[in-house]
Amino acid sequence: MAKVYSHRFRIQLHDTDAAGVLFFGHLFRHAHDAYESFMSAIGAPLAAIVAGGDPGLPIVHAEAYYRAPMHHGEAIEVRVEVAEIRDRSFAVDYRFEKASGERCAIARTVHAVMGRDGARADLPEGLAASLAEYLKEAASF
Amino acid sequence: MAKVYSHRFRIQLHDTDAAGVLFFGHLFRHAHDAYESFMSAIGAPLAAIVAGGDPGLPIVHAEAYYRAPMHHGEAIEVRVEVAEIRDRSFAVDYRFEKASGERCAIARTVHAVMGRDGARADLPEGLAASLAEYLKEAASF
Amino acid sequence: MAKVYSHRFRIQLHDTDAAGVLFFGHLFRHAHDAYESFMSAIGAPLAAIVAGGDPGLPIVHAEAYYRAPMHHGEAIEVRVEVAEIRDRSFAVDYRFEKASGERCAIARTVHAVMGRDGARADLPEGLAASLAEYLKEAASF
Amino acid sequence: MAKVYSHRFRIQLHDTDAAGVLFFGHLFRHAHDAYESFMSAIGAPLAAIVAGGDPGLPIVHAEAYYRAPMHHGEAIEVRVEVAEIRDRSFAVDYRFEKASGERCAIARTVHAVMGRDGARADLPEGLAASLAEYLKEAASF
Repeated sequence: MAKVYSHRFRIQLHDTDAAGVLFFGHLFRHAHDAYESFMSAIGAPLAAIVAGGDPGLPIVHAEAYYRAPMHHGEAIEVRVEVAEIRDRSFAVDYRFEKASGERCAIARTVHAVMGRDGARADLPEGLAASLAEYLKEAASF
Repeated sequence: MAKVYSHRFRIQLHDTDAAGVLFFGHLFRHAHDAYESFMSAIGAPLAAIVAGGDPGLPIVHAEAYYRAPMHHGEAIEVRVEVAEIRDRSFAVDYRFEKASGERCAIARTVHAVMGRDGARADLPEGLAASLAEYLKEAASF
Repeated sequence: MAKVYSHRFRIQLHDTDAAGVLFFGHLFRHAHDAYESFMSAIGAPLAAIVAGGDPGLPIVHAEAYYRAPMHHGEAIEVRVEVAEIRDRSFAVDYRFEKASGERCAIARTVHAVMGRDGARADLPEGLAASLAEYLKEAASF
Repeated sequence: MAKVYSHRFRIQLHDTDAAGVLFFGHLFRHAHDAYESFMSAIGAPLAAIVAGGDPGLPIVHAEAYYRAPMHHGEAIEVRVEVAEIRDRSFAVDYRFEKASGERCAIARTVHAVMGRDGARADLPEGLAASLAEYLKEAASF
């Protein structure tokens, strides 16, 4: 059965806007924080990947649905799963939940694999295997 | 023929990350800046909407595709169009282009209409008419 | 002997810029995260203060010195102390240190106390007492 | 008589927080935007400096005083002057003013000059001369 990686944070004052709730764009910052923690946990820390540049894993698509507003001070858990693994890309899903279990947002990022020469490259086997441990059974968003 | 609203900005140092290009999440900040300018231009400035709270227009979906990296110092034009107008929501599309005409990203935000009581409400007729001037002929993303 | 509050974070990709290190302005976001954690720890969570509006504690001065660049992926500890407690304001100091103990930045925020009417007000006694447990012996920056 | 460089922006939704006004840390982002525009205007665009790496001009000190809250939608003018030019550093001042002329904040950034080897270096003569055109008569903050 697939694993789910958990990342936690709290809505800080700077996450909110004058409407009193999380500014929608900041959800992607938190999704990426969860992605960074997840990648470290599976042995592929992003700092080394960005510094090394091979493979690059640029985000080619990002998407989110917002279901309930997130307020200043609320504790949020991000549940991270791998939505899809392809030869030259992979997709990561994020479920944002409040302590009550209420699902407040979902997000997805799709990452292309790029070689040092800037051309599309194959997903390294080791990374594919690590990602596979968190692969959702159904790829539904 | 539908109008297209144009918003311009330059990639600032804080927009970039250690990979040397625009951090993907910041695209949504720029899309929202373009949306704010657009709403002011059509006579519906967001500051009044947020302060008044009626109607609220929270973003319920946001999405972007990234086609070419945006580098520090590059001038970007965002071309804003309305993708869809429904009874209780509307969608706005953003095309990010470089001075060369190269399309580097597209984004979409979907806005629900909310009454002061927190329930879904009808899009006000005046706002619907203003948005309609920028409605794309084909809703393809 | 005065207490020191500790807050930890890691430099994320979005914290860095194309120069490869923490963008200076983001240091203040992290200082404020440390301040929020600290205020919760001493029983004065900011979310309640901001929502209640009495007292308001707006920042009237902020300052930072940068000694060493902070790189993507580095673990940072922020050591929080109270620099000064006055009748109608207080100041908080932040020392940013790497795991090696290297001090990479220091920052200070000065907070005014405001009543619900928007006029300066006295620092509530309970808050003053809680802050005093973390008061530095020498107010040097 | 010294020149003053002018940079304009509007407070966007994402600049504000749940307290309804500009989040203090974002002032530094806007100060840096003004700095980037200023540097381009005097023929020293930052993108080339960051990409070239010689000289590096890292910020070693940043400071701001906040006098009046800035609200969503307000138009702000930043008036940029050079506060000080030294052999191996320089300081830039920013006055944030509303359309009414009200001064809402002031900020200062101090930039060290670094050679490609990471050691302090002399401010290039051409840059010093360009900065000197904007040098304030009195260095008071």
